[in-house]
Amino acid sequence: MQPRVGVIMGSKSDWPVMEHAVNMLTRLGVAYETRVVSAHRTPDLMFEYARTAAERGIEVIIAGAGGAAHLPGMVASQTPLPVLGVPVESKALKGMDSLLSIAQMPGGIAVGTLAIGKAGATNAGLLAAQIIGTHDADVRRAVEDFRAEQTRNVLDNPDPSVE
Amino acid sequence: MQPRVGVIMGSKSDWPVMEHAVNMLTRLGVAYETRVVSAHRTPDLMFEYARTAAERGIEVIIAGAGGAAHLPGMVASQTPLPVLGVPVESKALKGMDSLLSIAQMPGGIAVGTLAIGKAGATNAGLLAAQIIGTHDADVRRAVEDFRAEQTRNVLDNPDPSVE
Amino acid sequence: MQPRVGVIMGSKSDWPVMEHAVNMLTRLGVAYETRVVSAHRTPDLMFEYARTAAERGIEVIIAGAGGAAHLPGMVASQTPLPVLGVPVESKALKGMDSLLSIAQMPGGIAVGTLAIGKAGATNAGLLAAQIIGTHDADVRRAVEDFRAEQTRNVLDNPDPSVE
Amino acid sequence: MQPRVGVIMGSKSDWPVMEHAVNMLTRLGVAYETRVVSAHRTPDLMFEYARTAAERGIEVIIAGAGGAAHLPGMVASQTPLPVLGVPVESKALKGMDSLLSIAQMPGGIAVGTLAIGKAGATNAGLLAAQIIGTHDADVRRAVEDFRAEQTRNVLDNPDPSVE
Amino acid sequence: MQPRVGVIMGSKSDWPVMEHAVNMLTRLGVAYETRVVSAHRTPDLMFEYARTAAERGIEVIIAGAGGAAHLPGMVASQTPLPVLGVPVESKALKGMDSLLSIAQMPGGIAVGTLAIGKAGATNAGLLAAQIIGTHDADVRRAVEDFRAEQTRNVLDNPDPSVE
Amino acid sequence: MQPRVGVIMGSKSDWPVMEHAVNMLTRLGVAYETRVVSAHRTPDLMFEYARTAAERGIEVIIAGAGGAAHLPGMVASQTPLPVLGVPVESKALKGMDSLLSIAQMPGGIAVGTLAIGKAGATNAGLLAAQIIGTHDADVRRAVEDFRAEQTRNVLDNPDPSVE
Amino acid sequence: MQPRVGVIMGSKSDWPVMEHAVNMLTRLGVAYETRVVSAHRTPDLMFEYARTAAERGIEVIIAGAGGAAHLPGMVASQTPLPVLGVPVESKALKGMDSLLSIAQMPGGIAVGTLAIGKAGATNAGLLAAQIIGTHDADVRRAVEDFRAEQTRNVLDNPDPSVE
Amino acid sequence: MQPRVGVIMGSKSDWPVMEHAVNMLTRLGVAYETRVVSAHRTPDLMFEYARTAAERGIEVIIAGAGGAAHLPGMVASQTPLPVLGVPVESKALKGMDSLLSIAQMPGGIAVGTLAIGKAGATNAGLLAAQIIGTHDADVRRAVEDFRAEQTRNVLDNPDPSVE
Repeated sequence: MQPRVGVIMGSKSDWPVMEHAVNMLTRLGVAYETRVVSAHRTPDLMFEYARTAAERGIEVIIAGAGGAAHLPGMVASQTPLPVLGVPVESKALKGMDSLLSIAQMPGGIAVGTLAIGKAGATNAGLLAAQIIGTHDADVRRAVEDFRAEQTRNVLDNPDPSVE
Repeated sequence: MQPRVGVIMGSKSDWPVMEHAVNMLTRLGVAYETRVVSAHRTPDLMFEYARTAAERGIEVIIAGAGGAAHLPGMVASQTPLPVLGVPVESKALKGMDSLLSIAQMPGGIAVGTLAIGKAGATNAGLLAAQIIGTHDADVRRAVEDFRAEQTRNVLDNPDPSVE
Repeated sequence: MQPRVGVIMGSKSDWPVMEHAVNMLTRLGVAYETRVVSAHRTPDLMFEYARTAAERGIEVIIAGAGGAAHLPGMVASQTPLPVLGVPVESKALKGMDSLLSIAQMPGGIAVGTLAIGKAGATNAGLLAAQIIGTHDADVRRAVEDFRAEQTRNVLDNPDPSVE
Repeated sequence: MQPRVGVIMGSKSDWPVMEHAVNMLTRLGVAYETRVVSAHRTPDLMFEYARTAAERGIEVIIAGAGGAAHLPGMVASQTPLPVLGVPVESKALKGMDSLLSIAQMPGGIAVGTLAIGKAGATNAGLLAAQIIGTHDADVRRAVEDFRAEQTRNVLDNPDPSVE
Repeated sequence: MQPRVGVIMGSKSDWPVMEHAVNMLTRLGVAYETRVVSAHRTPDLMFEYARTAAERGIEVIIAGAGGAAHLPGMVASQTPLPVLGVPVESKALKGMDSLLSIAQMPGGIAVGTLAIGKAGATNAGLLAAQIIGTHDADVRRAVEDFRAEQTRNVLDNPDPSVE
Repeated sequence: MQPRVGVIMGSKSDWPVMEHAVNMLTRLGVAYETRVVSAHRTPDLMFEYARTAAERGIEVIIAGAGGAAHLPGMVASQTPLPVLGVPVESKALKGMDSLLSIAQMPGGIAVGTLAIGKAGATNAGLLAAQIIGTHDADVRRAVEDFRAEQTRNVLDNPDPSVE
Repeated sequence: MQPRVGVIMGSKSDWPVMEHAVNMLTRLGVAYETRVVSAHRTPDLMFEYARTAAERGIEVIIAGAGGAAHLPGMVASQTPLPVLGVPVESKALKGMDSLLSIAQMPGGIAVGTLAIGKAGATNAGLLAAQIIGTHDADVRRAVEDFRAEQTRNVLDNPDPSVE
Repeated sequence: MQPRVGVIMGSKSDWPVMEHAVNMLTRLGVAYETRVVSAHRTPDLMFEYARTAAERGIEVIIAGAGGAAHLPGMVASQTPLPVLGVPVESKALKGMDSLLSIAQMPGGIAVGTLAIGKAGATNAGLLAAQIIGTHDADVRRAVEDFRAEQTRNVLDNPDPSVE
């Protein structure tokens, strides 16, 4: 199936976080591709990936990185596609560096930043689907179903002290 | 013209920041509407706004707020549309509180967060257009033209010491 | 017994923190109810909970949440009752995001914020009782007794090096 | 009129912030008293103030302080009344020190903390009234009227670009 | 032996940190006393301790506390003796709250603040001895001997890769 | 008069802060000397100053510096005298860098750290006098008189709204 | 004269900071070139600049940028030359975002980071000269002369209170 | 073999971090020496080390330290050689104190600062080699080979989900 979302990350060590983006996309029935693309170690690959993504049919790019996290912003500089950034938790500063490196982009090149870590990766998958859902009724319906189900889950388990 | 982007903010005092989102949308030829919608002071309006936005033809919502900035996340909880959040700089903590209140959403409800202040508002307008551009070739072309022009502006003015 | 304090939290995972609020209320003889109410996943329930709390006899609401913690502030926007917020420690940022999301409310909607985590939950229970104690002499006396006992505990164990 | 709220602050220089608490109390028709009480420079006065407040008819204490802000917590240690703390913005650290010094109380002595600066002082006045409103229908009605009016103000001025 | 340094702490749980102050004092031959004194739970004891310390022969007070750490500053407000504060590492914020609550005292009441945790407690013991050493040649000599020995320890073990 | 306190600073630009230390020493009748001594630009002078201070009759050293503030810690490494550090507010980070560079000393070399900026400089002067007051009854009395007067000033001006 | 240091920056607005690097290089007699090169707006230029710098005779690259500052790290990924990064002070977060975005590089691509703002730009010029001085005796002597003069300047002006 | 890089650290406990600098130097074929040199505990040794490094043939100094990390800046004040600083992760503040103590040097004495912890140590070794590579073609080639290999490693392992 033609992938519609490109999920890239700066290092294999980001996978335990970024697989949550993939899990959400799978749940919502959105095809994706995954790839390790490092802004610093493979800048040529990064440029090529970003520049050819649109023509290859990718509609949204999700990029995860930690520390001085340059991947989302640099990818965004090379493509007209919407780019979502996931700050991966770093060892010393717990992802505060990742968050600021991704969110604080100058005016003119935009990255939609999600939360640090697993929740952010999950939501990057969800937001990518919501973006596709602006022109794909099936995906929008999948988003709505997911959201209705998660609401039901809370309503069906109102007592916090029961495991 | 049917607005495609809803630009809302928690207070009139957010306008000097949020007008940069509107400026970018204007430049890119994307119709929009603006409205003061406060999560805390007008929760009913916020819910109604969020719940009816899709059926009224809105494709992307941009929400700006400062301090304990709940508007973007609460709007996102009421709509399947993609929601972009702009952290408005707060007086004491300079927008760090706004940034964390918007970006650190739990898994299951997503907000695409931009930078604190003017740059973030500008990029919210740009990213909204990129999202619309995933299914509207005219808007994508407008984004590409804007980006090409901003590149030319740098290339034509290479000397930093010349004003 | 008619509950006088409503203890709500955004997720079941907040219970190990929030049960300390319940423990304190139990100790002080103040009846309470507990419920998972998510600002983001169950906004309708949140609104209904907040809007009906006063008429159901609730006098104080304690709301705990982590990360972009919108529950306390959003509940406060829907009720004239005093609302106390407990910032639950988040994984990456250790509750600094929770604290700022709860404490930095704009003027016009108030949340009384307690400390991050267990100490904050304990004190939310205590402060709720102190609030009820402004018009209920029995509860005030229970607060005074608890405080006297905790003072005695320190005085009776003056030597820090003895376990 | 018998004051019901005691508004104290560590220094006269806190008044431009703390008068917003007084403004809100005035608006809501709640009688109050104000006094400079310094934890560090007048510890005896602080203790006497805190210990006699209840018997003098005070129902809630609002305490504002900046930097290593010890006043709210120390007052709370001397009274069964609910104590609300307002972190005053400090020169170097912009009130982050004040916020942490007030909010991060250990379990056993509670302070309900508001936002840094003017918004926090305003909300301290409001929350004090909400607390009194738990047993005084007139004050609760005044709170509800204030809140309804502030909602109307937003609804009547929906256009952010009109001054 | 007449204690010359009073080592107090807000809770027994501070002992594993504060015992490093005691270890240093022991090593330097300076007599001390230790006591749990809580600013919030035993304010009367705190005042009595602070006010009688000088007349009981204490020359320096070391006070350790965590979170909203009010003990050092409040003790300093009650005595002309020099007071040293040790910020104990807190669970969520890792002692940043403790550090700011102790260090950011307003002009007029001084606390000499040491580092967060064990190093700070060690140095509080050392600095107390240095203070006593300003008028006690034996103690100064003990300080000089300790310092010379710690220099020798580094010089005798120059190779970092040898355990 | 033989100076008893050495007040040094890394740069002339620190003087507007550090003169508050001198003002307090003057008020308390403690003789002092002042000197620009830069850890980075005049390391030899710094070492010589620190190593000869005790024999020249100095009893306490106050060192102020901003940014990567190494002066207090490096002076402390060269003298058995107590060293007090004043974090001068830095331009970008507002003295947070200065505070951490001074306070977070490793175990074995101690600096008593005061608050950032003017309040810290004032209190450095006060704490130096308190240290001298451990063996000089006149200075202790001057400290007590100053403290009594500052208490009276608060008590005589109880109304915060009167200028 | 063949430039030996390339001084680049992300925007013309960085010039008032970055000219201090140029001033230092001029003072030390090291030839340089300056250019606006934006990682985000001119990624092609950035890559070309970085990849051809060595063959054009550049020995060190100084790159200044603010906010999500990707320029230094991305340039470093394209050249074997040493790259020095200057965090330019950002409006909201005062350069803390710039500092973390530049300093927190992953292992494998190195940037030598200087202080935020003017001091950092000055030192980038100085450190570039020190690097060239490792193989150019004239430049090393210029560094030594500059350093000797700045030492003399402090020694000749010992009194901080004299303007 | 004549060492060209001096790798020093404030304490033996820094070795598990700093050995990554040594590992990189070994890999790149650059001779080095290692030594524990404490700014605070062995200031004389530090000065002697810094002052004699150049004449002993050292070309670059790498200095690692944690907390109030004064070693890199103080060494830089004593030598014309380029000095690289590695902030070692501290227990409480996770290296944020180390980073600011090393990076925020005043204008006039420069330290090239790397990332906190292992990545920073690795990059200090790499940057030292890049500096030597400005005048040693063999070392530059070793840097280029290392970088090409690390690029290949990413390209050869594109799938993040395969271990």
